[in-house]
Amino acid sequence: MADPSKGSLNTATVREKWNLRQCIEGCARHGLGGIAPWRDKLAECGIDEASRMIRDNGLTVTGLCRAGLFPASDAAAFQANLDENRRAVDEAVAIDAECVVLVAGGLPVGSRDLPGARAQVRDGIAATLEYARGVGMKLAIEPLHPMYAADRACVNTLAHANDLCDELGEGLGVAVDVYHVWWDPNVATEIARAGKDRILAFHVCDWLVPTTDLLLDRGMMGDGVIDIPAIRAMVEATGFDGLYEVEIFSAENWWKRDPDEVLTTVVERLGSAV
Amino acid sequence: MADPSKGSLNTATVREKWNLRQCIEGCARHGLGGIAPWRDKLAECGIDEASRMIRDNGLTVTGLCRAGLFPASDAAAFQANLDENRRAVDEAVAIDAECVVLVAGGLPVGSRDLPGARAQVRDGIAATLEYARGVGMKLAIEPLHPMYAADRACVNTLAHANDLCDELGEGLGVAVDVYHVWWDPNVATEIARAGKDRILAFHVCDWLVPTTDLLLDRGMMGDGVIDIPAIRAMVEATGFDGLYEVEIFSAENWWKRDPDEVLTTVVERLGSAV
Repeated sequence: MADPSKGSLNTATVREKWNLRQCIEGCARHGLGGIAPWRDKLAECGIDEASRMIRDNGLTVTGLCRAGLFPASDAAAFQANLDENRRAVDEAVAIDAECVVLVAGGLPVGSRDLPGARAQVRDGIAATLEYARGVGMKLAIEPLHPMYAADRACVNTLAHANDLCDELGEGLGVAVDVYHVWWDPNVATEIARAGKDRILAFHVCDWLVPTTDLLLDRGMMGDGVIDIPAIRAMVEATGFDGLYEVEIFSAENWWKRDPDEVLTTVVERLGSAV
Repeated sequence: MADPSKGSLNTATVREKWNLRQCIEGCARHGLGGIAPWRDKLAECGIDEASRMIRDNGLTVTGLCRAGLFPASDAAAFQANLDENRRAVDEAVAIDAECVVLVAGGLPVGSRDLPGARAQVRDGIAATLEYARGVGMKLAIEPLHPMYAADRACVNTLAHANDLCDELGEGLGVAVDVYHVWWDPNVATEIARAGKDRILAFHVCDWLVPTTDLLLDRGMMGDGVIDIPAIRAMVEATGFDGLYEVEIFSAENWWKRDPDEVLTTVVERLGSAV
């Protein structure tokens, strides 16, 4: 039997058909306990209106997606990225989010300097963290699957994210998404290492076989090969008691369906496959 | 200035247009020093004929592709996989290959038990290794990119491959393919850990941005974002002095071209991008 209130809707899951207002109303209708808006949806709705609606419906904001994307080809572009991250932190404060999700960013166009990009990510997080501490907002590094190292995120393992937390300290944590970490032989060790204090978000979806697109072919929980209950157990063994945030990029399947059907399925699968 | 004799042609690079005989003649014509046949091409040619032609053209066989693929749903299927691996070892001996390349295999159909699959891989390698030692053939574990963990190979990092070498011992090594390891923050450490004795093969191609297919959209060296010279330097710093094996799965580009054009480009890029 599913407890829908343990679920949080990442707006990416229904992004083709619902705006943020519809997402919030959908969460309430299906009994989900939380929401994780993307910044474009938030901007479209307006922060004040979004904040009021989220509060009125009693939803937890499990994260604001997304900031990060630090590496840049020159100092001016890097500074612009830092400025954008500060705006994201301010927005997260305004909607009382539990964290800002940081996706590291990939190689600057034309670059092959992966260690250099990783150094920019560290510096960018350090600068953003200083600002975030001042306004009481936590930052969650979401390591992305290694297939995104070139163009989306050059932090690709929990080990690397934990190393950054060790180095940069208080206020920084991780977002554990089963899609990105399920393959990692060190996943249990690194989840335990992160611990309750650092695990700021837990995201679920599934890895389909075959996967036909690197970005937009993620599966509904239970339709793929990830042992989600095993990873959830690792996360909860740390003491994590947050919501299960459902984030599914699925251009050819779930994005095309009626979002109410999607949320009905999400609630079922939270009970049977998470 | 390229030295074509440092290159080895993995037959997958031209597999749509050339049989093994044409590959061997192509290597000779372009001055490549080695070849790495896939087993289907070898069977089609016949082992005796292939062996004679390779010897007559003075080519080094940098590896036989491929064996492994151990995990199975039941004991009979697992045993059949072991038998197939023995046949691959025998073929490698017959053509005087430097190693048999092992691709671990993924999850059995319907399974979500990744630790179980990895245990089968360990057991399968152990059994194959015992046989290979008896006939003087080395086995090279090729860790594949984590995006293949479900359906092709559940050994996805050099660290995991090195751990298996530590556990199983003499006669077992690794094949380092830049495509599979370039994203790994531990690549330098793990290449150094493998060392000269364990690095049995070095494969090159490139990671394209964007990558439009998980398997068949690999790039020619220099067309992507991998810092290949940096990884080559790590490999050669161990004392490795073997050939650079070129393995490019490219259904929509290189596989459609005249293989002589492909080999001309390979030779150029061995000089400019490796």
